[in-house]
Parts: sequence; structure tokens; C-alpha cells
Amino acid sequence: MLDPALLIRADSGITTLTLNRPAARNALSVALMTEMEAALAAIAADRSVKVVILAANGPAFCAGHDLKEMRGLKGRDAVAEVFALCSRVMTAIVRLPQPVIAKVHGMATAAGCQLVASCDLAYGAATAHFATPGVNIGLFCSTPMVALSRAVGRKQAMEMLLSGRPVDASLAEAWGLINKAVEPEQLDAVVAEMAGLIAAKSANTVTVGKEAFYRQMEMGLDQAYAYASEVMTTNMLARDAAEGIDAFLEKRPPRWEGC
Amino acid sequence: MLDPALLIRADSGITTLTLNRPAARNALSVALMTEMEAALAAIAADRSVKVVILAANGPAFCAGHDLKEMRGLKGRDAVAEVFALCSRVMTAIVRLPQPVIAKVHGMATAAGCQLVASCDLAYGAATAHFATPGVNIGLFCSTPMVALSRAVGRKQAMEMLLSGRPVDASLAEAWGLINKAVEPEQLDAVVAEMAGLIAAKSANTVTVGKEAFYRQMEMGLDQAYAYASEVMTTNMLARDAAEGIDAFLEKRPPRWEGC
Amino acid sequence: MLDPALLIRADSGITTLTLNRPAARNALSVALMTEMEAALAAIAADRSVKVVILAANGPAFCAGHDLKEMRGLKGRDAVAEVFALCSRVMTAIVRLPQPVIAKVHGMATAAGCQLVASCDLAYGAATAHFATPGVNIGLFCSTPMVALSRAVGRKQAMEMLLSGRPVDASLAEAWGLINKAVEPEQLDAVVAEMAGLIAAKSANTVTVGKEAFYRQMEMGLDQAYAYASEVMTTNMLARDAAEGIDAFLEKRPPRWEGC
Repeated sequence: MLDPALLIRADSGITTLTLNRPAARNALSVALMTEMEAALAAIAADRSVKVVILAANGPAFCAGHDLKEMRGLKGRDAVAEVFALCSRVMTAIVRLPQPVIAKVHGMATAAGCQLVASCDLAYGAATAHFATPGVNIGLFCSTPMVALSRAVGRKQAMEMLLSGRPVDASLAEAWGLINKAVEPEQLDAVVAEMAGLIAAKSANTVTVGKEAFYRQMEMGLDQAYAYASEVMTTNMLARDAAEGIDAFLEKRPPRWEGC
Repeated sequence: MLDPALLIRADSGITTLTLNRPAARNALSVALMTEMEAALAAIAADRSVKVVILAANGPAFCAGHDLKEMRGLKGRDAVAEVFALCSRVMTAIVRLPQPVIAKVHGMATAAGCQLVASCDLAYGAATAHFATPGVNIGLFCSTPMVALSRAVGRKQAMEMLLSGRPVDASLAEAWGLINKAVEPEQLDAVVAEMAGLIAAKSANTVTVGKEAFYRQMEMGLDQAYAYASEVMTTNMLARDAAEGIDAFLEKRPPRWEGC
Repeated sequence: MLDPALLIRADSGITTLTLNRPAARNALSVALMTEMEAALAAIAADRSVKVVILAANGPAFCAGHDLKEMRGLKGRDAVAEVFALCSRVMTAIVRLPQPVIAKVHGMATAAGCQLVASCDLAYGAATAHFATPGVNIGLFCSTPMVALSRAVGRKQAMEMLLSGRPVDASLAEAWGLINKAVEPEQLDAVVAEMAGLIAAKSANTVTVGKEAFYRQMEMGLDQAYAYASEVMTTNMLARDAAEGIDAFLEKRPPRWEGC
């Protein structure tokens, strides 16, 4: 029996998805992306999951697309379907009701770097690196740049895209691609702490807020405020806000719905 | 007689608005926001005001909405009106003809953090902190995030919104939420210097530029250039540009209109 | 005979455009901008050019518009045409099929700072400075801010625009306006290395990627992914990607089309 390309482990409201093609540097084969899409769809429908960690086995975090597989594809439609599948996985992360935290311990390249950029939060080992090196093989990282250019400044994104050079974790933090570069031996603990912190919040509230975040980012200021005011009004009238505010005013811990 | 919730002091073209509910950590009660809205409307119509400083009395800069008051509201319309009022105050800062500088000496949380993010410039004491902790009480900081996500990177905004954790002034500077973190005893002087610098410019020119800044940010590149070229052409033909350029070429100080 | 206002030197796929009005601090006279527009149009049509360096002679990089010339213009149409010409030059840099690298050794002010912000990449001597000081002469840097506000954060852009103060190279790097501040004696080498690195890539691929970068930046996430997936599919089916991937899998150097 084959190992699954994606490992799924649920524990106390935290689901960890682990890329599990270590020998292939976790290249995003069609099989792996299909498993990811299914896993994300299942998580989206599972109210017991409060937060997701995206991790990887082996020396690399993720090397991007599976180039051998890509070169074996016959015809435009087959190629288009692979990129469409990949884009569905990336947007599924952004649209997932639960926050997703990338835990990056090695190289994250091309679509692997895009995964990091697509997650809501990302932590990297100080030894991790990030690159969009498609330009080196004649295949510009055009879909990765959609996520990358929304995470870092234009000149910094262009430097990665045009040079293909890797950026270390410290620079990735300074540019905003990851939230923090930490000592490798602390990476698990830092990510677990943040996941635990988020899992202890009201899941309803987190879901409302995450969705609103990405929606309002695409609006002008007036429209964003009109929309966010609606969201916040509805949130205020929901059970968890009433409970949360009362608990705060009464200096006691809140009891969230569904917990 | 009650102290006013907002103190207004005008001096040499610089108007300082001071949040004055120190015992309530300057929570944005309906009364305070109503005073702010009125003060901003008056300033917008007053050509003698060149620049505005937003400051606060007491240990905190601003704790956000007044939660006790919020919980006492009856019905959706009443809640919606509070968030609508708040959004009007925030957009009034952005739309104000004069630049607004936040002077932040303590905690700026939730809508208090939004105030900082909404100002054109912000300076913070090294001891100041910034947080969007609504998620801790079941009420995601959805309206604050409109301003926050336009001031800092996505992952950094998400970290504040999802974790609720405070960010210190040094990190707020690195992320772009404030212009600079300074020693607490230098905060008044740094803000006064910047306010004085701006107050000495042509008020007409500053007003034209500030308005154009936020408008062009919401446009694509071609439209932004078409619009900004129009603005700059009109600006060039105005009296203050003629005077300013002549003064520059003649190496003398300019005399601005209305000064 | 007059020296040309713009020097053009082509060498091994790298074309260097050098602003050559050193006594005028390379002010962007109509003559200079007209030469720049023509040079960029010629480069756009010349497949032998892989990358462009924008440099400058004399103590300053570029002082912005030529104020004496501007003040001599008669009527709104004449003024409007100068700003329209300037905006065409700036957008021609963004739309150029080849990447453009700014090499900044001195002061880059107003439209000079806009040039830096408009290039895909920018490197600065540690002694370089950047400013949008139009506000000091009653002429807000409204067109420069279109480029500036897309390169750095809002509060940082506003600080430059409202104060008119210069920012040093180190801060310009931290804010994202330039990719790196380097020792003045290393500036030539750093830019030459990056130019050489890019010139060695597949020119077809770089062109596809650069165009897609700026187009997708103006789209929402779903539209950006739909567009970028199309671009990447077409790129994957092109000759250089096939060659590049095969070379990578066979561990040999690629041979790009037209090289």
C-alpha cells in the first residue's frame, strides 16, 4: 500500500495537514493537490475544526509543481486543468472558514512558496528559504505571484520572480511573507501556541472575521466600511459576542457556542 | 458640569483634538464619537486650520468602543447606527482636507487602533501598544481591519486580528502602522515638529494632495495617472505653485495664499 | 554640438539608459523625456534587449521636472502636455516588455523619485536619498505619488509627500522603495550582476511574467487566478518552458529561443 500524499491529523480542534511526498520534496502532483482539495472541502464543512496547520515531511517544505508529471501532460486542456486545480487549492485556503497557518521548515519554492503566501499566517524556521524560481526553467511563476504580490511589496516580489533567487527566513519576515522566523527547534512550539490561541476563540467569530478580511480587501474604502459595518453589526447581535462581552465585563472566561 | 469628552485646542494653524475620557480609557462612546464628528466637520470648513493632531488624555490612547454602552443597545438598528457613526468618523479623518497626525502614548485597541491606522501620519511612544483584540470577546475587529489592512501587510494584519495580541511600537513601526516609535519624552516634540512643518506649507497644496492621494489609491495605474495628471496640471496653474516655484528659483521663502 | 540628454548604450542584451543633464541635476526637461519615450519605444520593439538599466550622470540621480521650463509654459494645454508626457514615460517603464533596474547614486526627487518607484527593481548607493518635495514649492507631487504609493506603505508615502523630507537609502530599503542599499563603490557591480542574471533567462518568459505581474495586481483574487492560470498554461506550452524543464530534469543548462 502506498503512503497517502497528504497526512491528516485532527487534535483538539486543530487539524494538521502534512505534505507527505518527502522523496519528491513534496512536489504538488495532481494526486497530492486532489487530496488537498478534498481535505480542505471536508474541513470547511466540519465545525469541530477551529484552525488548520499546513506542514510538510522531509527536508523541503514544498518544491512546487511536479515537473516530470507536467512534462508528460498531453495538450492544452490537460495543462490548464493542472493549473486550475492548483488555483482551486490556493483559493480554498483563502476561502476556508478556518484560519490556516503554514509551518515552513525548509525550501518553499514556486507553488510551494505560493502555499506559504496563501495561508493566513506563516512561521518559518530560521533555516527555511523561499523562492519563485520558475524563471530559471522558462516557466515564470505567474500563479504563485498572485499570492506573493499580495503578501509582499512590488519590488520585493519582482526581485524574487525575476531573479529566481531564494530569500532566507529573516528577509521573508522583514518583507512580510512570513509572520516570524524562529529557531528551528522552536518552530513546532511557536505554531502550536498560535494554533492553540486561535482554537480557543469563538469559531463563529473567527470565521466571520476571516471571510470579511479578504472580501473587504478588494473593495474601495466606502464600500469596505459599509460592508464591514454590516458584518460587525450582525456579529455584535450574535450569541458569542454577547457572551464574550459579558464575560469580559464580568472578568470571567467566555463560553463559546459549540465548545 | 461634565468635562467634554473631546478637547479642542487651536494654536497657530494646528488644531489638537484630545480624547478626554481618561477613566474610561477614552472608549469611543456615542457622545465622544458625536463630538468627534462635529469637530471634524467644523475643521473641514475652517481654512485657518492647517493640520490636526489627534491625542488622548490618561494612561491609554483609546480602548475602542464603549462595551457597556454597546451591550445596552436595543435592536439591530441601534447597533448598526453606532458602527455607522464610527465609520463616518474614521472616513471623516481620511476625507478631511487637512492632514491628521495621531500621537499615541499608550494602548490603542480595536477602534482605537483603527483611529491610528486611519490618520495620515502616526507617531508612537516606544511604550505604546496596538491591538485588535475583538476576537477575544467574540466580536471580530471587522471595521478596524478596514483601516488596519490598508496600513500594514496582510499577514501582519491577520496576526493582530486572529491572535488579538498587542504589538509594541517598534514592531508597529516596522510593519508601517506608525511612522516612528520615539522615546516617550520626545513624542510631543516629534509630533509638534511634524505638525509645524506641514502647517508651514501651502494649505491649498496640501489639501489638493491629500485628497488626490486616497482617490488615486483606489484606481488602476492608467486611471490613476490620468487623474493625477489633471490634479497636477490644475495645481501647477494655481497661485501657490507659481509663487512657490518663483520663490524656489529666486532662493527666497514663499508667501502662501491665506497666510 | 550638444550632448544628448539621454545616453543609450547596448551591451550583451543589457541596455543602459543614462540621464545626461548633470549640470541640471538631470531635471526631466521636455527634451529629455521625449528622448526617454523614444528610447523606451525602440527597446520595446528590440528583442535583442533583455534588460534595461536606468542610470544617471553627475552628482544627482534626477531632480524631477525642469522648473524653469515649467514656469515658462503658456496655458493649461502646455502644462497638461508636460505631465501627460511624463506619465507616458513612467507607464512605458511599467509596460516595457523588458525589466528595468534603477541604479540610484544620488538624490532622486519628485519625478526622479517616481522614476525609481516605477522601475521593476531599484538599487541605491547607501549615500542616495529619495524625496517628494513638491509640497515645499506649492506643487504637490501628485503624479509621483501614483508610483510611490504603489511601492511603499501609505503612512510612509504620506510622510514623504506631506513633509517633503528626504529619506536615506537604508530607510528606502526598509520601506520597499528600493531593493537594496549598497556601498557606493559596489553599486555598479550589484546592478550589473542582477542585470546579467536576468539577461541570462528566457526573454520570452520574462516578458510574459512582467506583463502578467502588473495586470494581475489590478484584479481581485478570483480574476487574478483565472488570468494567471491562462498565462501560465500558455507559458507551459511554449518552447522555452519545454526546453527549460527538460534541461532542469537532465541537469544541463537550457538553450533559450533567440539566444
